[in-house]
Amino acid sequence: MYTQSPRTTPTRLRERASYDPDVVHPILDEALVCHLSFVVDGLPRVLPTLHVRIDDTLYVHASTGSRPFLGARSGGLPVSVAVTLIDGLVLARSQFHHSVNYRSVVAHGLATLVEEEARKREILTAVVEKVAAGRSSDTRPPNDRELAQTAVLALPLVEVSAKTRSGGVGDEPEDYALPHWAGVVPLRLERGTPEPDEGIVGIPAYLA
Amino acid sequence: MYTQSPRTTPTRLRERASYDPDVVHPILDEALVCHLSFVVDGLPRVLPTLHVRIDDTLYVHASTGSRPFLGARSGGLPVSVAVTLIDGLVLARSQFHHSVNYRSVVAHGLATLVEEEARKREILTAVVEKVAAGRSSDTRPPNDRELAQTAVLALPLVEVSAKTRSGGVGDEPEDYALPHWAGVVPLRLERGTPEPDEGIVGIPAYLA
Repeated sequence: MYTQSPRTTPTRLRERASYDPDVVHPILDEALVCHLSFVVDGLPRVLPTLHVRIDDTLYVHASTGSRPFLGARSGGLPVSVAVTLIDGLVLARSQFHHSVNYRSVVAHGLATLVEEEARKREILTAVVEKVAAGRSSDTRPPNDRELAQTAVLALPLVEVSAKTRSGGVGDEPEDYALPHWAGVVPLRLERGTPEPDEGIVGIPAYLA
Repeated sequence: MYTQSPRTTPTRLRERASYDPDVVHPILDEALVCHLSFVVDGLPRVLPTLHVRIDDTLYVHASTGSRPFLGARSGGLPVSVAVTLIDGLVLARSQFHHSVNYRSVVAHGLATLVEEEARKREILTAVVEKVAAGRSSDTRPPNDRELAQTAVLALPLVEVSAKTRSGGVGDEPEDYALPHWAGVVPLRLERGTPEPDEGIVGIPAYLA
């Protein structure tokens, strides 16, 4: 279990929080995009970027020259990172109890730059494998120039929690008699048929 | 056009940025969830929440008692808000040119608490209408107690930009001869068949 901290304790609906790596990791692994938050001159910044988890570290892509890259280069950058998966719209009889089914993770800590080339290669391979297992062996790995242009931040998963909601509608007892429709509209991020680039025929097994 | 600022000027790939409300607004309107970033004791925080845009204001849901609520209550809370829609995975022949097709918006500014009850009701109605046009008239509006429990932050859309990538693979000229598969895997957040709550029969026209 990850250790609970003031930052990872919700102000309300605490029963939705989890500190179990078996809950946290699959959410991080399924989400394609994370939102990376950091402070510049005392003010908040947030930007979407790509991530991959390996064991108990979250690796976040940051372009060289970007604010997070420059911040992390000198001793580490305090960050807060969130990923959110949306599973459904919860339509209650009352507007107040409308909700969303979701699985989210927020991690806090000091992000540092991954400097070692071999480690950077491993991480970038993991990013490509996240798209589809087997994909990395069907690509050209980065050359030295490309590797130098790619920045990766490492955030140890220490102060981290998941928050989830699932299931159906929770209306007030007296509202069940109302004539309004209630239920859940499931949502899913679906992959469409792969569209090959010009000159490419067919779709590889790892994408089918 | 929104006025460009240092915070809304990307450090790279500037051609992907837009300050056009006709680009910014549809992204905010399509996204169900935003990521709200703010600063507590000098450190960044980010959390997922719900939002709705009305004209040139972004309204963000914040539970009463939460950090953003408490911060916004006393004179306004500096925030950065991001929404991100993922449209596809871009699989290049080189790992380096792997990318994602996306549409994102980031807005910066001072968020203040919406205090006026009538305005709060309008905003909550707009949140419910965002799920499906026509939904709000098939719900019970919030009573006074529920309204008091709901906090809404208002962020004027002034310092705001979109960033988007669309289209196909962009490989290095010499890589087109490689035997690797390249193309785009489209992604879409699909709504499944609505699942009625116990005692409810059928699906209303506004959800069909």
